[in-house]
Amino acid sequence: MSDTSLFHATPVFPRGFRCASRNVGLKPTARDLTLFVSDVDASAAAVFTRNHFPGAPIILGRETIKGGVLRAVIANSKVSNVATGERGVENARRMARAAAAELGTSADRILVSSTGVIGVPLPIEKIEAGVVGMTADLLGDPMVGAEGIMTTDSHPKALSASVGDATITWVAKGSGMIEPNMATMLSYIFTDAAFDAPTLDRLLRAAVAPSFNMLSVDTDTSTSDTCAILANGLAGAVDEAAFLAVLIAGCTRMTQILARDGEGAEHLIRVEVVGALTAQEGHVVAKSIVNSPLVKTMVHGADPNVGRLLMAVGKCFECTIQPSTTDAWINGYQVVANGERLSFDDEIVRTTLSQEVVVLRVALGVGTGEATAYGCDFTKGYIEENAAYYSS
Amino acid sequence: MSDTSLFHATPVFPRGFRCASRNVGLKPTARDLTLFVSDVDASAAAVFTRNHFPGAPIILGRETIKGGVLRAVIANSKVSNVATGERGVENARRMARAAAAELGTSADRILVSSTGVIGVPLPIEKIEAGVVGMTADLLGDPMVGAEGIMTTDSHPKALSASVGDATITWVAKGSGMIEPNMATMLSYIFTDAAFDAPTLDRLLRAAVAPSFNMLSVDTDTSTSDTCAILANGLAGAVDEAAFLAVLIAGCTRMTQILARDGEGAEHLIRVEVVGALTAQEGHVVAKSIVNSPLVKTMVHGADPNVGRLLMAVGKCFECTIQPSTTDAWINGYQVVANGERLSFDDEIVRTTLSQEVVVLRVALGVGTGEATAYGCDFTKGYIEENAAYYSS
Repeated sequence: MSDTSLFHATPVFPRGFRCASRNVGLKPTARDLTLFVSDVDASAAAVFTRNHFPGAPIILGRETIKGGVLRAVIANSKVSNVATGERGVENARRMARAAAAELGTSADRILVSSTGVIGVPLPIEKIEAGVVGMTADLLGDPMVGAEGIMTTDSHPKALSASVGDATITWVAKGSGMIEPNMATMLSYIFTDAAFDAPTLDRLLRAAVAPSFNMLSVDTDTSTSDTCAILANGLAGAVDEAAFLAVLIAGCTRMTQILARDGEGAEHLIRVEVVGALTAQEGHVVAKSIVNSPLVKTMVHGADPNVGRLLMAVGKCFECTIQPSTTDAWINGYQVVANGERLSFDDEIVRTTLSQEVVVLRVALGVGTGEATAYGCDFTKGYIEENAAYYSS
Repeated sequence: MSDTSLFHATPVFPRGFRCASRNVGLKPTARDLTLFVSDVDASAAAVFTRNHFPGAPIILGRETIKGGVLRAVIANSKVSNVATGERGVENARRMARAAAAELGTSADRILVSSTGVIGVPLPIEKIEAGVVGMTADLLGDPMVGAEGIMTTDSHPKALSASVGDATITWVAKGSGMIEPNMATMLSYIFTDAAFDAPTLDRLLRAAVAPSFNMLSVDTDTSTSDTCAILANGLAGAVDEAAFLAVLIAGCTRMTQILARDGEGAEHLIRVEVVGALTAQEGHVVAKSIVNSPLVKTMVHGADPNVGRLLMAVGKCFECTIQPSTTDAWINGYQVVANGERLSFDDEIVRTTLSQEVVVLRVALGVGTGEATAYGCDFTKGYIEENAAYYSS
């Protein structure tokens, strides 16, 4: 993974941000309720899932984010509060009010998230009782919050980086039901740089497009995807271009971390498409490759069955594809030239496919469009986790 | 599966059709070369894959079928002759010439198919030597041909039915890399009814649209999909409407047989979408559900996580979806009403999901469009087969 030097060895929060998480009885013992809090009001922007069945927190969140100001995020894991009707939306409102009461602010400054099983009523009383006193637990360690929002994640996910005098911190979760569209699973970004809400919204969308929106674990777009950014301004103004560059780098790295931790995954797959007719066609081809079950199992088995790459390119019916100009590489080793499989050394391909990060590069030779997508291999672990997710 | 009474208990060929298959050394011992032969010239039509990297036999087949007349189909398994360049096309031509010489006809009346690994040169000398003398082996049992074209199929696949005085026989293979578009994997249909080639082409397309084109094992569209029909006319004229009805019924049943034998599959999944704005939107929603890894693993685990159905409907961003009018049933048992999960009995859903055939029905309530798609569950067997297909 690139740009590792950009990130702090141990993630920290920007000035004025803290978090707390605890078990309130939604899960047997693990942390299941989390607060991320700014000491002062923060400018805020967010993008949400495009799924037609948005969860109740998404319905409320779209309303809340219109104000452009947040003090805190409250998130629970285990139950997603999706497909729960009017009562679900009322429960999301009660969750915002409970957090607001604990923090001494108003409910319209609280962003609510829920993640977990779809279609199960939110145990709102446990959350209302559980949030009381959480202010006393607030700490400066983002990992505490990252742990509280985990579902099938194998580890908590947080990053931080400096830009000028300011800090940006990313906290995210997500492992399955991931092909975000407009946003990602739950991903929160905190900064003490000063930006107004419209600027933050523009920067967030610019950063999400090449990162979280190019991630796919399983083609399944969650009903709860949320990516929010809070800027409390305590570090003052920061150069916008520098800020955006770091914001994109962090979102991209978090995307790779999420992909590598895809349910059951053993490899991170990065698909680079160049020479497409347009960037949009590059996007379609990159997603087709990263989502192909046969490509994903090829990487899993380190099986040099590279014809599957061509199959996955070729099934993009609406794109301009010319076999005679199509080349492909695996971790820099060329395996296809002009649409024909080269007589490569199987052992070299087997060895490179066994690496933790597998880069599949395809040059289409019909234009200048480019796109990069992120995903993971397909393993028995994915089947195992998802054949009994609800029941476990 | 419906309409079983339509089909003969043991599949037979129409008048004048026979087949033979043998091992010619492509596989260690299993049959790998097959001939389907009509005693007389037959009117013919075919549809092929829309994949941008069509195999050499597809390139040749598109040329051959223009003549509208076939005497025979020659097919090999183990090597697909895809991504093999000009030499691949020349090898396909040699394969047609070898069959023509054996049968005493011209190469433009031979349809060639190859199925197996992509990007490996076709061992054409073994095929040329192997086809010699196959005429002596020709038999009236379609299962012999069905066995010769198998790759990862767990059993040979053939059906036959009567229509008036004529017979229709279907022989097919296919287990993975299946989301046909315009056609299916290898599927051959033989009849002694008399139709001219343009009529056959129209009937074939009408039958393929609601059957093979609604099948998906893994979203991966093969580079070799071929569905051809040969009508040798030995039974004389048959009522066209009656013929089409039986043709559709057989193609639909063969689609279900292929879906149930999807790589690693333990269940046939039939997705029925009604009330879509248009038939096309119904098609998109049905395919989204049948292709969702999380729906497929839900069925595999008999896990009553029905929110995943809504997720898969909701990720059809471009379709008209209204949560408030969306209902869903599993094998007739209602689990969603007006976009909300009902408080159903988990045990009933678990039990019904454990049946071999699982029907997922979704009513969108926004129009009169309908579509039915066919697929299978996602299991560790799929991962196992495809992590080492090339190498095994």
